[in-house]
Amino acid sequence: MDTNSSQNRNQKNISENKKTLRRPTKGKSSYKRKIYDLRNTPKDTLVSFSLGGQEEVGINMIGYKYNDDIIFIDMGLEFPDEEMLGVDYIIPDITPLRGLEKNIKGIYITHGHYDHIGAIPHLIDKLGNPKIYGLKLTIGMIKKRQEEFRVKSKPNFIEIDIDDTLKLGVFKLSFIRASHNIPDSSMVIIDSPVGKIIHTGDYKFDMTPVDFNETEIHKIAALHNQKVLALYADSTNADQPGHQISELKVEKSIRELFTKAEGRIIIGTFASLLSRIQQIIKVSEELGKKVVIDGRSMKNNVAIAHELGYLKYKRGTIIEYKDMGRYPDNKIVVACTGAQGEDRAVLMRIANNEHRQIRIQKGDTVVFSSSVIPGNERSVQKLRDSLYKHHANVINYTMMDIHAGGHAKQEDIKLLIKLINPKFYVPIYGTHTHLKLNAEVAEETGILKENIFTPFNGQLLEFNKREEAKIAESKLYLNNILVDGLGIGDVSGIVLRDRKQMSEHGMIVIISTIKMSTGDLVGNPDIISRGFIYMNANKKLVEDIRTKVKETLKDSDPLTPANQSYIKDKVREDITKFIYKRTHRNPMVLPVILLM
Amino acid sequence: MDTNSSQNRNQKNISENKKTLRRPTKGKSSYKRKIYDLRNTPKDTLVSFSLGGQEEVGINMIGYKYNDDIIFIDMGLEFPDEEMLGVDYIIPDITPLRGLEKNIKGIYITHGHYDHIGAIPHLIDKLGNPKIYGLKLTIGMIKKRQEEFRVKSKPNFIEIDIDDTLKLGVFKLSFIRASHNIPDSSMVIIDSPVGKIIHTGDYKFDMTPVDFNETEIHKIAALHNQKVLALYADSTNADQPGHQISELKVEKSIRELFTKAEGRIIIGTFASLLSRIQQIIKVSEELGKKVVIDGRSMKNNVAIAHELGYLKYKRGTIIEYKDMGRYPDNKIVVACTGAQGEDRAVLMRIANNEHRQIRIQKGDTVVFSSSVIPGNERSVQKLRDSLYKHHANVINYTMMDIHAGGHAKQEDIKLLIKLINPKFYVPIYGTHTHLKLNAEVAEETGILKENIFTPFNGQLLEFNKREEAKIAESKLYLNNILVDGLGIGDVSGIVLRDRKQMSEHGMIVIISTIKMSTGDLVGNPDIISRGFIYMNANKKLVEDIRTKVKETLKDSDPLTPANQSYIKDKVREDITKFIYKRTHRNPMVLPVILLM
Repeated sequence: MDTNSSQNRNQKNISENKKTLRRPTKGKSSYKRKIYDLRNTPKDTLVSFSLGGQEEVGINMIGYKYNDDIIFIDMGLEFPDEEMLGVDYIIPDITPLRGLEKNIKGIYITHGHYDHIGAIPHLIDKLGNPKIYGLKLTIGMIKKRQEEFRVKSKPNFIEIDIDDTLKLGVFKLSFIRASHNIPDSSMVIIDSPVGKIIHTGDYKFDMTPVDFNETEIHKIAALHNQKVLALYADSTNADQPGHQISELKVEKSIRELFTKAEGRIIIGTFASLLSRIQQIIKVSEELGKKVVIDGRSMKNNVAIAHELGYLKYKRGTIIEYKDMGRYPDNKIVVACTGAQGEDRAVLMRIANNEHRQIRIQKGDTVVFSSSVIPGNERSVQKLRDSLYKHHANVINYTMMDIHAGGHAKQEDIKLLIKLINPKFYVPIYGTHTHLKLNAEVAEETGILKENIFTPFNGQLLEFNKREEAKIAESKLYLNNILVDGLGIGDVSGIVLRDRKQMSEHGMIVIISTIKMSTGDLVGNPDIISRGFIYMNANKKLVEDIRTKVKETLKDSDPLTPANQSYIKDKVREDITKFIYKRTHRNPMVLPVILLM
Repeated sequence: MDTNSSQNRNQKNISENKKTLRRPTKGKSSYKRKIYDLRNTPKDTLVSFSLGGQEEVGINMIGYKYNDDIIFIDMGLEFPDEEMLGVDYIIPDITPLRGLEKNIKGIYITHGHYDHIGAIPHLIDKLGNPKIYGLKLTIGMIKKRQEEFRVKSKPNFIEIDIDDTLKLGVFKLSFIRASHNIPDSSMVIIDSPVGKIIHTGDYKFDMTPVDFNETEIHKIAALHNQKVLALYADSTNADQPGHQISELKVEKSIRELFTKAEGRIIIGTFASLLSRIQQIIKVSEELGKKVVIDGRSMKNNVAIAHELGYLKYKRGTIIEYKDMGRYPDNKIVVACTGAQGEDRAVLMRIANNEHRQIRIQKGDTVVFSSSVIPGNERSVQKLRDSLYKHHANVINYTMMDIHAGGHAKQEDIKLLIKLINPKFYVPIYGTHTHLKLNAEVAEETGILKENIFTPFNGQLLEFNKREEAKIAESKLYLNNILVDGLGIGDVSGIVLRDRKQMSEHGMIVIISTIKMSTGDLVGNPDIISRGFIYMNANKKLVEDIRTKVKETLKDSDPLTPANQSYIKDKVREDITKFIYKRTHRNPMVLPVILLM
């Protein structure tokens, strides 16, 4: 007796599943193309390829291969959009590297944000535990994250200095410190046998940054006459005109706000925005305020950055909630996570009066020191509404310059291109729209249109010895690997489709027991539903469904296995139609036939 | 044999359900307060109350009551946010009006948008079919929508002219034409026994609008010396500084774009944005272009507005897809729906190559002539990505003034307040944040802080004969009524919670058949799951779950009913824990015990 219809169904759909493992947003054209074999790249040709980061913000992982040697820059993760129900995050697909593990000469990580380090614990075992290089804080962040996972490989993380050079197979790497919003962000200069590549990582220009964030503009300027072959550059803010504002401006706004506030200040920002946290602490110390840090990830980041000397504060500046009462309200600053309206983060708990140690009171100023990540607008709005209801003053970045992004805007991009003067330009990191807009900016600076490439994930760029470049005709076959709980890659398109259907109209299980000897229905069919309708108020509908099931079953002989699956299909079809007609809803209908 | 555990569960939770029927965003404070009885409002006092629209954008329905007479302005619906899984829309709760149906002297509808007319077909039967008044196009839109629903009451829709006055009980209503982005938008002057109320509906100031959209500023100016008691004014764009841009500016941008485009133009906008559609048609005619209208709701709106004389075009301007081939590409304009990235709307189908009559080709210009509604950012981004992939030129409102909102911005609000010079100011229509920001603007213009009220839904404002106003201490008890398919109000908090859980981790049904005579398990438990895990690749996990269920069942005696429900709970608990430990996921576990 096995009526495990889910398994049956999956069995039927194995071939379909292969396809649906790809995220729905990808185009279908790739299936038709020939698959590129990374083991056989053209001789004496530099080949670059993205395993992610060219069609989304996140899962940044770009590889460079020359003959037998491969290096990667970054291994990031992406947080899923609302269609990927229940998925925790997405990591790059490294299948095309199978058999090439020994060719990986090293991986350089440009900085410590999750969209650049997040996939490391999930992938290093499979990649044969390659050496991973980074600056001090970056390696610190990677080690910290590693502790949260069960990883077989012994960590192979190597801290380097910004002025070091690395020899990874045929590649020689050197580095440029870059302004971003976490210390130890860097660009990479990759010297390859066919020429010099500049890979920016995340960057902006900030001539007046906070500590540890100065762009080494002299190193960039020195590249001008070095015949740079190609510039691979961040597109994240290429949709925005003008220059990114300076952290100094932000610091001034924070100082103004902190000086004027008559009550407590509660300031929400990203846990990873260490430069902002440093500013908050710095200004608080100037004004004699005490700072509570709240939110697990922010506390972790502060601890590690402080330990490594990247975040400075005086003894006694950082306090716990329990000590708040010892200071007047206008000496209290709470720096916390949750400025994106995340459900269980600190700021939401505060706004909903669900926080154990702090309640919003009249006179509190709540500051959103972050932009709103696309897709979070409604949650942030709800958060603001709740705060207003509790009579807080609410300040966000549209009202004051209390946030600066970490990425180059259009005028910054132009400056970088003019300084470096590359032959080829390759927008990286962002949606296709971002890449295209970055390409338009580059074209405006005078780069030839035919020398600008915006490859999709899995597409390959080939540079030969004659300084020629082209996009390869075939491409890598990539899936986006979904991580859900402890499972990696076991949430497929079918599973997501089922979640989607149930999320909209719920489901209804119909269990019919049939006497094997006679083929008769035993008793009434049992009906269980969840997420469909408030059943107690709809007993009539439930009865009518039962009656309908009986009718469908009456004329059938369930005793042969083939027929049994036919009956299930029939019940599913009849009841689906019946329910739609009655309610205009489409719950998932799951018929179960039990034989006794 | 009845194992309908869903009903059992609902039964248990009936009292809980009463609460959860409220949307989760509402505060809990209201439960503690006394409930206001609309049948007993204070004598000779004007009482205003919102059944919706004060904590969200949509479900606008504000009532005014004086002794026995009640009027309403608007009856709108709201589209749900992503947490209200599967809900089609939300309508106001009219329960507090029970027994007062005869007191409703009439309902005035300010304009024909869904957030002002959408709840009419769902509510008029229950309200005793009151008279509904509006300008010509508004009544036309209401009648059109009515056709889509089964409504018992004979329509009681009365068309009025902008210069008419209405006597509804003690209330005298007169009207002011207002600029918005649909013709026949209006403000209402309500003369009540305690004073004059101005209720703006949706408005902006546009000194150079498109046809039929001129604000009657002389009527507004005339109010200055009439001692207006209170101004109830739109807050939708109160978060935005400056003035709303004029439709003339938008028209100029459209003309520039249409003139320069070398290929076809595909322009997406809201179906209800009739003034924009008029501009598109007007400019197309000037330039000798032909216009295809695509999208059911847009076609409907164009048809009705044309029929009533509000949308003008020459014979031959509007063509069908099949006739496109007769004109060169640069003479073709497609005006369509879907600029918000809606799944099945025209623009998304075009972008995904799923549209039957049109494919994107190189040279096409795709124009987003609308803002992005908060929450839609990611879908719009995906839409733009798809369009870029097909080499379309993509233009949106951040690149050019090709969209003007329909609502007053901060400087417009100031102008209105200065012109009308009211004693009291009541921000309406928007989230609480919008209302608060509107209040701040009013305070800046010199309205006394204590004369500005931002009541929540269900809160009541009382104006007495001495021109005093206050918010009542008790409030109306309101639910948000969720409409899902044909069901109104039958989707409760429990149903939504179940949908949410299933959307994140799916569900697993465990069916165990037990021999009544012995209490033994018959065969193996059946396990069905959906949306949880790709089961074929996880047979081991399924087997382990089965084993775990058997263990749980072994030590139990299922024969008494009480015990049976105990066993179910035990299975649910054990398996939930077991699955979490193994997978870090929380699917909904539904145990079924069948007795044979």
